[in-house]
Amino acid sequence: MFIPATVIKKKREGGALDKNEIAAFIRGYTAGEIPDYQMSALLMAIFFQGMTPEETLALTDEMLHSGIVVDLSSIKKFKVDKHSTGGIGDKTSLILGPIVAAAGLPVPMISGRGLGHTGGTLDKLESIPGFNTQLSLDQFKLALEQDSICFIGQTKEICPADKKIYALRDVTATVESLPLICASIMSKKLAEGIDGLVLDVKFGSGAFMKDFGKSRELAQRLMEIARGAGKKVAALMTSMEQPLGSFAGNALEVYECVQIMKGQPVLDARGVDRSQETRELSLQLSAWMMFLSEKYPSIEACYREATHILDSGKALEKFERLCQIHSGRLAELPTAKNKIEVPSERDGFVAGFETERIGWIGVKIRAGRAKTTDIIEPTAGIEFHAKIGDYVKKGEPLFTLYGSDSSVLFNVQAELVSCVSFSVNPTTAPELIREVLS
Amino acid sequence: MFIPATVIKKKREGGALDKNEIAAFIRGYTAGEIPDYQMSALLMAIFFQGMTPEETLALTDEMLHSGIVVDLSSIKKFKVDKHSTGGIGDKTSLILGPIVAAAGLPVPMISGRGLGHTGGTLDKLESIPGFNTQLSLDQFKLALEQDSICFIGQTKEICPADKKIYALRDVTATVESLPLICASIMSKKLAEGIDGLVLDVKFGSGAFMKDFGKSRELAQRLMEIARGAGKKVAALMTSMEQPLGSFAGNALEVYECVQIMKGQPVLDARGVDRSQETRELSLQLSAWMMFLSEKYPSIEACYREATHILDSGKALEKFERLCQIHSGRLAELPTAKNKIEVPSERDGFVAGFETERIGWIGVKIRAGRAKTTDIIEPTAGIEFHAKIGDYVKKGEPLFTLYGSDSSVLFNVQAELVSCVSFSVNPTTAPELIREVLS
Repeated sequence: MFIPATVIKKKREGGALDKNEIAAFIRGYTAGEIPDYQMSALLMAIFFQGMTPEETLALTDEMLHSGIVVDLSSIKKFKVDKHSTGGIGDKTSLILGPIVAAAGLPVPMISGRGLGHTGGTLDKLESIPGFNTQLSLDQFKLALEQDSICFIGQTKEICPADKKIYALRDVTATVESLPLICASIMSKKLAEGIDGLVLDVKFGSGAFMKDFGKSRELAQRLMEIARGAGKKVAALMTSMEQPLGSFAGNALEVYECVQIMKGQPVLDARGVDRSQETRELSLQLSAWMMFLSEKYPSIEACYREATHILDSGKALEKFERLCQIHSGRLAELPTAKNKIEVPSERDGFVAGFETERIGWIGVKIRAGRAKTTDIIEPTAGIEFHAKIGDYVKKGEPLFTLYGSDSSVLFNVQAELVSCVSFSVNPTTAPELIREVLS
Repeated sequence: MFIPATVIKKKREGGALDKNEIAAFIRGYTAGEIPDYQMSALLMAIFFQGMTPEETLALTDEMLHSGIVVDLSSIKKFKVDKHSTGGIGDKTSLILGPIVAAAGLPVPMISGRGLGHTGGTLDKLESIPGFNTQLSLDQFKLALEQDSICFIGQTKEICPADKKIYALRDVTATVESLPLICASIMSKKLAEGIDGLVLDVKFGSGAFMKDFGKSRELAQRLMEIARGAGKKVAALMTSMEQPLGSFAGNALEVYECVQIMKGQPVLDARGVDRSQETRELSLQLSAWMMFLSEKYPSIEACYREATHILDSGKALEKFERLCQIHSGRLAELPTAKNKIEVPSERDGFVAGFETERIGWIGVKIRAGRAKTTDIIEPTAGIEFHAKIGDYVKKGEPLFTLYGSDSSVLFNVQAELVSCVSFSVNPTTAPELIREVLS
């Protein structure tokens, strides 16, 4: 007989659960036979005792099979996706999706919404008037067959165990557990029916895991699971020490991506094209996604091909097709009613950002959500006029705040300025990609 | 605003909760505003991170005040109780209660039932036909005023928080946590309205905490809480390396106690009076209960007085009065329909007992309960004919099994024999009381 308390105790004592114990617990919980209070006790025991790679793989597999795994086996191509651990201004999906799809590799993206200080791809796309992310799994499959690209949200059919467990973790202080994070991420990604996955694992002041060592460990654990599930995988360790690119904010980020795909600069108040960072990271991630397919001789060849697709306008074409698939009217992308320029209060070299706090300011101006029921203002956001390494004089713009209500923007000005630290000595911009694990 | 997840996280990170956080959590939980799943996550975090003495005292206090504290302030005498951490054949309450009450000190005993391998005082008393432990708190108070003694069970009004939390701990593998054990024990004891408490903290193979060092730590933590609540306290560290006295089993233990109070021996198959252990520990515990009242010049004087009360028949008289109060017909104490003598399969000095396993065999023959809904057979039990230090020849009796169904008794014979270990070299009986903390 299966006794949940015995499994909880085994984990509490540091034992490794076997496949059957994990299966019985997850299935019992998803079916409502094991109550929340036993699951939360197990989650806390896992928080303290961790899980072996084998346990984490078994947990992922069980969560994955709590729902539907999209069957893309009829598409005889290498299907590849990217997962980012989240950041501020992190918008590369909108560019790399079209690039990789244009290269002929289907990109089945099941994306999330923004919650807390980081944004979500679905929110960005939904800032395009009419853009419908609520397609059925059949429509999703059809779009991937015909156009190699589609973006949908997590449906009820996908990983119901993860949905139920995540809601419980959120209210029982059991979110920050590496094996639980890994199983949650990977069960959803594996449900997409992919053959390969590129991980964009962020570190630095805006990342979920700020410490490089810890985020690198996260990357390795995620890769272990992907490999355990028979998928090709690579991970890019990328800096979130400062916001990425020109903008954070949904419609603003779509605008930045479209500019990049059009080959047009996004000049800031100082005349610098800040979107180059976004372009570069999107190309690198695209290249790795393509490289995993083993259709290219080298990562350099992939990078060249990705650049060619972007520069030739084929990525833009694919993005416009994507908007059609989802009934989005890109030409009607809204802009904010109000904006406020936020100047520097001192001279100095920009030394750093409290990037997570900038994300929370984004939530305050309604570019993001504090709780799932919050409603987003699509045109709200922040533009970045100075990055680490830049010299700024007092009175020169650091940020521009965008939104519909100028008093809301006005109220966060001082806080936004306080997120920037300065140095009298020259500072150096952080490397965008610190390491690639493959 | 009070956010339960924030408190759980604080404990998870090793922080000490303040009085207000503990109060809000316990009150919210008892009122049903905080769900089981948040409480079980907190309990597991406490299991791993522990609690400071201050936190444990605050938790105890909050659990205590979740219900009624019996108000015995109208009784202008020193009210004292004993708490045992539980053992096999541990029946001293039935003797020390009458001794101390006969000495003029009220003994307000709110006792428990047996669960698992250890017995419970209420079950023992209820083996006396008619004995009613379901008296109201008013009847309890009246009996204490008039006769200085009364034994009742935990009522709904007493420590409802403990009742709810204990039920949750049982199914979430969070029982074995020192601060939670301490708060559970002490909240119930403090609810009795006592001025003093003697702790009988068991160690050895039949104890809840087998390791001497750990049980000593438990004793110290319990004493800290008692002192923090302004109570007099002492703790006797007593051996549970082997069952106590002649018998384990409800009616059998009552019989043993009555024989002791009558001044009559309980001779085993070898002609040894095994009840002397029970008598000695009861006297020692009685003496410490009396000593806490500060009415006696020394512990030796208390021991002499306790012995006098026992030997003069006053304890028996008080026990008979107790039976009257509870409508028990002592003369009708039942005896078992069947008994089986269990002989030794080898020669040797008895070296040790797997005492907890003996307790579980008691559960199998229905002298105890595996779950709260199990029904006890009052006459079922085990008699002990050999103890550590004794030399036994093959074929000589080790145990006698008692009960109504001889096939049940027959089935556990071999297992019972396997609980005894032998040595070819002489062995020494363990000291009954290893240390007194006061």
